[in-house]
Amino acid sequence: MSDREALIEANQAFYHAFESLDLEKMEPIWLRDPKIVCIHPGWRKLTGWGPIMESWERIFDGVFEMKFELRDLHLLISGDMGVVVTEENLTQRGYDGTMRTQVLATNIYERVGNRWMMVLHHGSPVMQPADNEPPLQ
Amino acid sequence: MSDREALIEANQAFYHAFESLDLEKMEPIWLRDPKIVCIHPGWRKLTGWGPIMESWERIFDGVFEMKFELRDLHLLISGDMGVVVTEENLTQRGYDGTMRTQVLATNIYERVGNRWMMVLHHGSPVMQPADNEPPLQ
Repeated sequence: MSDREALIEANQAFYHAFESLDLEKMEPIWLRDPKIVCIHPGWRKLTGWGPIMESWERIFDGVFEMKFELRDLHLLISGDMGVVVTEENLTQRGYDGTMRTQVLATNIYERVGNRWMMVLHHGSPVMQPADNEPPLQ
Repeated sequence: MSDREALIEANQAFYHAFESLDLEKMEPIWLRDPKIVCIHPGWRKLTGWGPIMESWERIFDGVFEMKFELRDLHLLISGDMGVVVTEENLTQRGYDGTMRTQVLATNIYERVGNRWMMVLHHGSPVMQPADNEPPLQ
């Protein structure tokens, strides 16, 4: 399997864990290291194992179902660091009903042995309509 | 100079170029490569030299002044790839007056020779109040 294929597979495993809403499936995705970083859309930055795993638990507790349709994968690989930028088209069912949102995510993985382990997840909302006319900052 | 110091310096150079509102200062920050990625807060993803430089031109044209106060730098380095996650406390003066915003940025650099060149900038708005209570996604 090529580096790119292995990285895409690791990224798919992350979203499967996300959809599973099961912390036990999310834990093995991440490198157990104080340096790991997670930014959920609109949240503050979280660092380290405890705060990040707690955030997943809260997200998983707050929804009944999450389905991701990934589009437009973009990969950057250099040595033992791999980056996947992707558009997450997310449908979630929660206490307030069903919601569809679009999120842009930068996911960074570090190769440990022959596994790509997540070290950073940065998700952010897309607020711009699909007319390709970016708003000014 | 250590890897970390050089990476912090490259990141400072990016924000100096940003504050200069001068495309000619922003251009040498980035790796001139089709793989480069830029996500401005709320915008869609831009890839490649042309679209990314055009976006900087539009941002620079739309404001009179931008000042960044960076807080809480977090670094990840592996081989020739370096990541800086930072909180941007931004004051901008534009046609609509002065605005203060908080942005979380993931900046990825690739080492080319002895220079760290930007390959990804992902900025996203912080919507959460400063009470450390993250909203559910």
